[in-house]
Amino acid sequence: MGEHEMHEIFEKNRSLLITNVVTEGHAVDIFVDEQGTIAGIGKNERKNHPGEADFIIDGDGALALPGLVNTHTHAAMTLMRGYADDMILQDWLAQKIWPLEAHLTGNDIYWGTRLACLEMIRTGTTAFNDMYFFMDEAARAVDESGIRAVLSYGFIDLNNAEKRENECRATEKLALHVRSLSNPRIKAAAGPHAIYTVSPEGLKWCAEFAREQKCGIHIHLSETEKEVTDCIAQYGKRPAAHLDTCGILTPRTVAAHCCWLDETECKLLGKRGVSASHNPVSNMKLATNRAMPYPWLSAAGTNVCLGTDGCASNNNLDMFEEAKTAALLQKFFWNNPTILPAPEALAMATANGAKALGFPTGRLAAGAPADLVLVSTRTACNTPLHNATSNLVYACSGGSVETTICNGRVLMLNCEIPGEQDVLNGAAAAARALVKRSQSA
Amino acid sequence: MGEHEMHEIFEKNRSLLITNVVTEGHAVDIFVDEQGTIAGIGKNERKNHPGEADFIIDGDGALALPGLVNTHTHAAMTLMRGYADDMILQDWLAQKIWPLEAHLTGNDIYWGTRLACLEMIRTGTTAFNDMYFFMDEAARAVDESGIRAVLSYGFIDLNNAEKRENECRATEKLALHVRSLSNPRIKAAAGPHAIYTVSPEGLKWCAEFAREQKCGIHIHLSETEKEVTDCIAQYGKRPAAHLDTCGILTPRTVAAHCCWLDETECKLLGKRGVSASHNPVSNMKLATNRAMPYPWLSAAGTNVCLGTDGCASNNNLDMFEEAKTAALLQKFFWNNPTILPAPEALAMATANGAKALGFPTGRLAAGAPADLVLVSTRTACNTPLHNATSNLVYACSGGSVETTICNGRVLMLNCEIPGEQDVLNGAAAAARALVKRSQSA
Repeated sequence: MGEHEMHEIFEKNRSLLITNVVTEGHAVDIFVDEQGTIAGIGKNERKNHPGEADFIIDGDGALALPGLVNTHTHAAMTLMRGYADDMILQDWLAQKIWPLEAHLTGNDIYWGTRLACLEMIRTGTTAFNDMYFFMDEAARAVDESGIRAVLSYGFIDLNNAEKRENECRATEKLALHVRSLSNPRIKAAAGPHAIYTVSPEGLKWCAEFAREQKCGIHIHLSETEKEVTDCIAQYGKRPAAHLDTCGILTPRTVAAHCCWLDETECKLLGKRGVSASHNPVSNMKLATNRAMPYPWLSAAGTNVCLGTDGCASNNNLDMFEEAKTAALLQKFFWNNPTILPAPEALAMATANGAKALGFPTGRLAAGAPADLVLVSTRTACNTPLHNATSNLVYACSGGSVETTICNGRVLMLNCEIPGEQDVLNGAAAAARALVKRSQSA
Repeated sequence: MGEHEMHEIFEKNRSLLITNVVTEGHAVDIFVDEQGTIAGIGKNERKNHPGEADFIIDGDGALALPGLVNTHTHAAMTLMRGYADDMILQDWLAQKIWPLEAHLTGNDIYWGTRLACLEMIRTGTTAFNDMYFFMDEAARAVDESGIRAVLSYGFIDLNNAEKRENECRATEKLALHVRSLSNPRIKAAAGPHAIYTVSPEGLKWCAEFAREQKCGIHIHLSETEKEVTDCIAQYGKRPAAHLDTCGILTPRTVAAHCCWLDETECKLLGKRGVSASHNPVSNMKLATNRAMPYPWLSAAGTNVCLGTDGCASNNNLDMFEEAKTAALLQKFFWNNPTILPAPEALAMATANGAKALGFPTGRLAAGAPADLVLVSTRTACNTPLHNATSNLVYACSGGSVETTICNGRVLMLNCEIPGEQDVLNGAAAAARALVKRSQSA
């Protein structure tokens, strides 16, 4: 227990000795220094740090894995969880989601993002890729929650030059604001929403901005068939080729959905080093009618990662559920049960996600930041334990996570998250007020 | 707290007053008598039972819903959780599952079924429909675990008259054994495995046996396309028509999978009052290449319910996950986001399942047995609470269940299940020994 009271473990970065956990089949101890870095990992690593750790966490044979990385979401949409389901996409947007979004305030974004971060901490996600509005407030929520995020303002110019100016300034403003935070857990990205909402000029501006700032690009790509047919009609080429013309396809780009890519587009993404974020739950719920062509992307060497999309179309942020659904959907849609086996699904949710967002996480190794989660094996879903990776992907859920650590700071310990009820109450109140405002408008 | 120590609540049926829970949008109290029946439910029902209850459970605003019903599983296959995944069906069976099954003992079935019941209690399932071997041992495990089950011996004659005799005797023996238990929670059923493993004579015998005994019939139907083409080649008709000829399609019949039914077969099932058990996770994992035609079955008035299949092809028994996956798969496969909305998915997992198994449960009403679960609303997945049914289906998982009650007996209270570690240890040991025996054979 070290020399401190256990509740102090949540307060700030401390040195930690995590004993008796299992990673990739090996029983190890993990030593985390006060800077939040994994300083040592290995069998009996505890012997190298006698009396050194502020806190000792008895892993009790738990599985240790890198914190999961959610590479596509709209975090504050947690406020719309369950507000509208089981509708045609256009009705859902026009009748339910947009009227609510029209009344969003910065305060809503703060509470919605706090709720999202809370849910992610509880389900083992330590980093996410966000695109929404009032992103200064999202940054405040991420800062306070203790997890990692890449934040982008949803750039939508609708081919209007005046609107475009506004979106460019908002993108610049967010980048400046995030830089002013000097928080290694938070980065800004350019967020051109999609080819059907952003002009070629807007896309080119975003590409240039990201190149100058060395920041990421977060975009929706080929979620629906209509996007493809409209793009061909308007630009004479398919969406990926159109984005390539505008300079959007880079190794810092995360393209979400990618359902309707053809094989040539998959090769182009692979060649450009783009990360493709698979969002199977959202795609199934909204009936995109096609699953991301994982076999083609995989063959092209594309970095395929995983995202939940926003809570309005999922309706949770559980990356364990997403990994299982990805493995199931790929097998079913491509009619081959050998596609996307458990180890690949787990890599998509961890290492590939970290690579997509440019964070030095996603692996448990000396020198890497301590972004890690512990999953107890004293549970039904981990009994028996023939194959830990299989259990993590196919049997466990986010609720199996007991301890979550990001950048060396303990955010959840044995299922306890300090301040949880305050966040739930604040978010519930914001959601109620939002609906009330939209209904009285 | 009533007059008893709280740990005594698990010991046997007591009268219970569950205060301040929400069901179908109404805040109610529920009074359960010592016989395990819901004796009263309503606003301020507590006032009708002053000082009467042995125990008071403060629901704290939790959602109360009927215990979930898993209408197709092979419970003891929990021992094979994660033993083999991501393989072609035939290889998976021939190289991994069958060799292991060849070494199963009654002791394995006991521990595997105990583990299954534990997992079901934890994830809110209070009744299941089982088909496997050594079913006396399954009955013992169900009896001790406290939940409900319909147990069938997997009848497989492979067109061999001698084998058929054996299977008939095993089916009769199980029915006698279950009757000798006089346990209202446990029923026997006939379990003709499938049309490709049971001769027409065997099917007819099962149909007649079930008619005489007034018991259920549990069968696999049209899981794969091959079953359909082979059936047409051999019998000149599609599987449902073949089963109808053999008398298998009755209101006491549960047909699992039903992926490859055509519209005429769906109408036949509806006409005969058959219950169709949808198993979306297993179907996706094993790549059946077609989703159950829910829209046709629904239009035909068929009772559609839900099952997880065995843990070797899922790999858990979480009926919340199954309900969400059902809603997602139906929307995706039939390319319509309005298909299988949340209320229908929840009904499949509760009322429809109870109807399929012939249990008087699946609803919270005075006079019904107290099979119910409580899901806290003080959690991220239930925040905000715009729509409880949507949250239950799309946002929560089995891990959201905090309290599980079956036939009036409390099996889990605030996530505590007495004796849990003993079951986990027993099942883990059985699984290890089973693999060892099969490898040294």
